[in-house]
Parts: sequence; C-alpha cells; structure tokens
Amino acid sequence: MISMTVQKILNGDRRTAARLIRDIDDGIPGTREILKAIHRHTGKAYVIGITGSPGVGKSTLVDQMIHGLRRSGKTVGVLAIDPTSPFSGGAILGDRIRMQRHSLDDGVFIRSLATRGQFGGLTQSTRSAIDVLDAMGKDYIIVETVGVGQDEVDIARSADTTVIVVVPGMGDHIQAIKAGIFEVGDIFVINKSDRPDAEKTLHDLRALFDIARKKLTGEGWEPPILMAEAASNRGIAELLDEIEKHRKSRKTLSHETVIHRKQAVARDELIDMIKCRLFQEALDHITSSPEFKIYLDCVTEGTKDPYSACDELLSAKLCFIGDEVNRKPDLQEYLVAQK
Amino acid sequence: MISMTVQKILNGDRRTAARLIRDIDDGIPGTREILKAIHRHTGKAYVIGITGSPGVGKSTLVDQMIHGLRRSGKTVGVLAIDPTSPFSGGAILGDRIRMQRHSLDDGVFIRSLATRGQFGGLTQSTRSAIDVLDAMGKDYIIVETVGVGQDEVDIARSADTTVIVVVPGMGDHIQAIKAGIFEVGDIFVINKSDRPDAEKTLHDLRALFDIARKKLTGEGWEPPILMAEAASNRGIAELLDEIEKHRKSRKTLSHETVIHRKQAVARDELIDMIKCRLFQEALDHITSSPEFKIYLDCVTEGTKDPYSACDELLSAKLCFIGDEVNRKPDLQEYLVAQK
Repeated sequence: MISMTVQKILNGDRRTAARLIRDIDDGIPGTREILKAIHRHTGKAYVIGITGSPGVGKSTLVDQMIHGLRRSGKTVGVLAIDPTSPFSGGAILGDRIRMQRHSLDDGVFIRSLATRGQFGGLTQSTRSAIDVLDAMGKDYIIVETVGVGQDEVDIARSADTTVIVVVPGMGDHIQAIKAGIFEVGDIFVINKSDRPDAEKTLHDLRALFDIARKKLTGEGWEPPILMAEAASNRGIAELLDEIEKHRKSRKTLSHETVIHRKQAVARDELIDMIKCRLFQEALDHITSSPEFKIYLDCVTEGTKDPYSACDELLSAKLCFIGDEVNRKPDLQEYLVAQK
Repeated sequence: MISMTVQKILNGDRRTAARLIRDIDDGIPGTREILKAIHRHTGKAYVIGITGSPGVGKSTLVDQMIHGLRRSGKTVGVLAIDPTSPFSGGAILGDRIRMQRHSLDDGVFIRSLATRGQFGGLTQSTRSAIDVLDAMGKDYIIVETVGVGQDEVDIARSADTTVIVVVPGMGDHIQAIKAGIFEVGDIFVINKSDRPDAEKTLHDLRALFDIARKKLTGEGWEPPILMAEAASNRGIAELLDEIEKHRKSRKTLSHETVIHRKQAVARDELIDMIKCRLFQEALDHITSSPEFKIYLDCVTEGTKDPYSACDELLSAKLCFIGDEVNRKPDLQEYLVAQK
C-alpha cells in the first residue's frame, strides 16, 4: 500500500500527490511512513521562496515566473502557504484562481497549504509538501508565504533562494524593516514599480543595506534590488536571471561552507520535527490526563497560579531520560552498521 | 529579594517593572518566581488588543487612545509586540518614538516586547508582561500586534476587546480576509479613511460579515465598523465608546457563559505555558544529548531520513509517565487542602 503510493508519487501522479499533501496539511499520522519512504528520492529540486505582505502581488509574480520557467522547459511545483481562513475553513482559492491558466499544463502542479498547524507544525507540513513535489520530479519548487511569524521566517530560511517582494508606499521605512524576514532575503523585488515612491523605496532599501552590509553580503553574494511590474510581465526575466546567478554563486562555495550549510539545514529540519512531535504527543499526553483537569479548575478558580500549575503538571506527567541511565553504548555502532 | 521586587511592582515602580519585562522578554528563568507571586494581584485591568498589518497606523491610533483614556482619568499600560529586527538586535523604537509625548506622564507606561521567542514563547511572554502591567495597577492595557501568525492570533484572542485596524486599498478583498485574525475581532476600524476606496473597504467588510454573520455575532455582539483618521484624532472618541459598549455587553453575559470563558482563558494560558516549557526543557534536553549529534550527522549525510531520526530520538530521550504508574490517589485531596 505504502510502496504503491510512493511509486505513484515518483511517477508524478497528480491525484496521489494532491491527496498526500492534503493529508499532510490535515496532520493525518499515516503520512509519516510514506514521507520516510520518499525522502531518499528528494534533494533534486531547486526551492525558491517568495515572501511579502498581503497585497504586494506575490501570486501574480509567481504566475509570471511559472510562465518564464515553462518556456525554458522546466517543470514547476508551487506551494502557497495560506493562513487558515475563518470563512472557508481552508485555503482561500484566490491564489490558485490567479494561476489558473497553468491548470491544464502537466508540467505545473500548484497546491495550497491551509492549516497553520495548531501545534506549530506549519514549517514541518511545508517541508513535507516540498518533499512530495521534489519526489514528483519538479525542477523548481516555488513556496509563497506572507512572511510574518517565526514559522514563515523558518520556511524562507530553508529555501535555496529567497525573494522578498515589497511595493512602494507601504508604510515608512521603519515599518519596512520590521519584518524579521528581511535578513534572509537573497533577492529583493520592488513590485508595482510604476507606483509613485518607487524610487524612495529603492533608496530606503539601499540605505538599509548600507547599515547592514556585513550581514546581508555574507559569503560573497550581494542581494540585488529589482524593479518589476508583475501584472505586465516587466522585470520577470531579470528576476529569473538573478535567481540563476544566485544558484551559481552557491555552487562556487567552498566544500566546508557547503557541508556547514547542509548540516544547518538538517539541524533545522530535525529540530522542527522534534518540536512538532513534542507538541502533538507530549502536550496531548498532558492535557488529556485527569491531573490536567484538576489543575485547570484550580487556575480557573484562582486557587493556583498557572506558573506553579504548569511546573507541577510537567513533573508529574513527563520524565526526561537521563544520559547516565539511557545512553546506549551500542547506539553509535548500530547507526554505523545501518549506513 | 523576590518579595521586595513584588512590592515595588505593586507600588507601580517603573524601573522595576521595566527591568522585569525586559527579563521576561529575554527569557531569564528567575522571572517565574516573581510572576508566581504577583499573579494573585492581577485580573483588574481591562485588556484591549490592537491588531493590523504594518503601515495601517496602529501606533498613531494607540497614541490617540492613550490621550483619550488619560483625559477621563484612567491609567494606561501599552505593550507593543515587535518582531525582532535583524538590525537593531531588539525592538525598533519607532512605536515608542511615536508615543513619546506621553513619556513624562506617570499614568502611562509603554514597553515593547522584541523577542519572538525562539521556542514559541511570544504568547507567554506577552501574558506575563500583561500580568506585570496589571499588578502595577493600570486601568487599561493596550496590546499592539501585527496580527499574523498563530501566536499573534492567540494574543488577540486573549484580550478582553480586540480591535482590528485596516486601511483602504491594501490588496483586494480576497487578501483582506486572508489573515486568520479576522474572526477574533470585536471592533473593526478603517483608519486613514480619507483615502480613496474607504467606502469600498467598508462595503467589502460588510459583505464578509454577511457571509460569516453566525460566527461573528455570537453572544449578542455585532462587531461595528468605524471610520477613523487617527493622525487628526477623528474617530477616536467613537472607538473608545464602542470599547466601553463591548465591555458592558460582556457584563450582561450569563453566569454560565462567564464561567465557560474563564475556563477557556485559563486553559489557553496553561497550555501555552506547558508548550513553552516543553520547548525550553524537553527540546533542550534532546538537542544537547550526544544521541542528537549522532542522528544529526546521519541526516546530514543522508544515511537516515529525518522522520525516522526524530522517532528514534524521542523514544530514546523522553518518557511519558503513564496514568497507571503515576496517578497520585491523594493529588485531588492535596489540591483541595491547598485551597
């Protein structure tokens, strides 16, 4: 059953991939085994993050990028990360509507992730969905996010090239740098650059780069700032060119840097996964216990402060296995044998 | 030492409160004992959440609200939740600069929380900082957030009255409802309403309300939509009036609803705290273990998929105390005795 699903994904079957991504989004536990099996077939796709506030025109930009990449014969997967809407109970279809002209093209596969993950699992869901598109054989995977919140910063950080999209006239420059996402940008796009104040925005961004030059130009790449009007396809070819340049610049990195980055990515991925399972399992274990109900009543009635209730609950319900007790002397050997 | 700090907070000492909030923001462990001690002195302040995208004019609006509340003799605490800036290494001072005219007024106390909490602790830091302002005796506490991301939705949800601020012309209406924050709004403000398209924004919001009427008008309160121009103080008196109306409407709720809400708030608070400590302690316990390093190497080298590595690490490092083993027969009695 699992191997059949895996084979279908590897063959690029859209229905199977769509169902798997929906199950990942819904947090269906059975997806883990499939993800374990497809993981070895991943790592070939190039992941581009597109990040910007609502209204900057990300979807239109992505639509044009798909068009450009398809013209050079590349296949494209798109993940639009949508905050859960209170009205639809799922992803707003707006983004997909905008990209509809690609819906009959077999070389393009577009999905939205709707759930913000009650247990902080957005980052993990996104990584898993990227794995699915990667295993399907897509050359490029574009991940579109709003870019606010730690989880979205983590997603942007894990892309191979991160593009930050801004528009002229959205707040003053103090507001512009408020997003924690700024430092992870490899390429900046000023979209809707026919608007007034485009030059001012360019000037503000440049001024920020000067302040932060050391941070932003690390490892020999100076983030370019491009002007674009996605709606009329202006600046898209330049954007795709810069993405290729950035991709090539990554190839000239030293072996040491490459290993270092690989480890950082693996570390982030592993920690995210542990976090997510801690949330799902440990939290569930604690909150479903009879003790939780008792302590909750005390906090509600004001007879116990929540800080003490939390301390007591954790020590009653969870234990950390000490290194002395549990360190398996043969773990290293076991793992070496598995290689 | 703790009792002296607590006493100073209760006396409204600004220096002590500022230091405590900074320590909470930095995640200094010692703050927990102080928070435990001040908790019984909290619950008197009325908490107003102000939420909206960067650039909608939240700070200016809050500045005018402070002015209005001070004129009616009320004391005000303000918490501005700032994403960490990559450049300042802390909160951007912009918000505070805008509210500077209140800096010499003893009845106003404004702080920013900068850290997004690497371990998902933003919600808990905010609650703790609210506790500090509450214990200081502030009549109103205004919490200003950007309102994107699950943590900010949680913060908005925990306010007594949540005000959502939008401006005309920021993306189309599909974008406008994208924020998961929408359903928690008690009052909506269209700021900068002198801009073109203000009527269209009003129309779009009303249309959304019609779709979602059942959800938004629960418990006899229909969220009003107000027009404002905060920069010229237009619409601020109306906003403060609506906040008072909403406050009164909460008082007419049935005893059952009040208890139900209290329990929901206590539940959120307790779960947040458990989450935060799970992150800090369990995650730290796992990632600092020698096993983590071994598994990380395997994932980096591609000899093990991260899903399996996560499963094996969790079962090696953490154990959940079963209800059979650990259920303390005298826990209930113990807790009853404590009351």
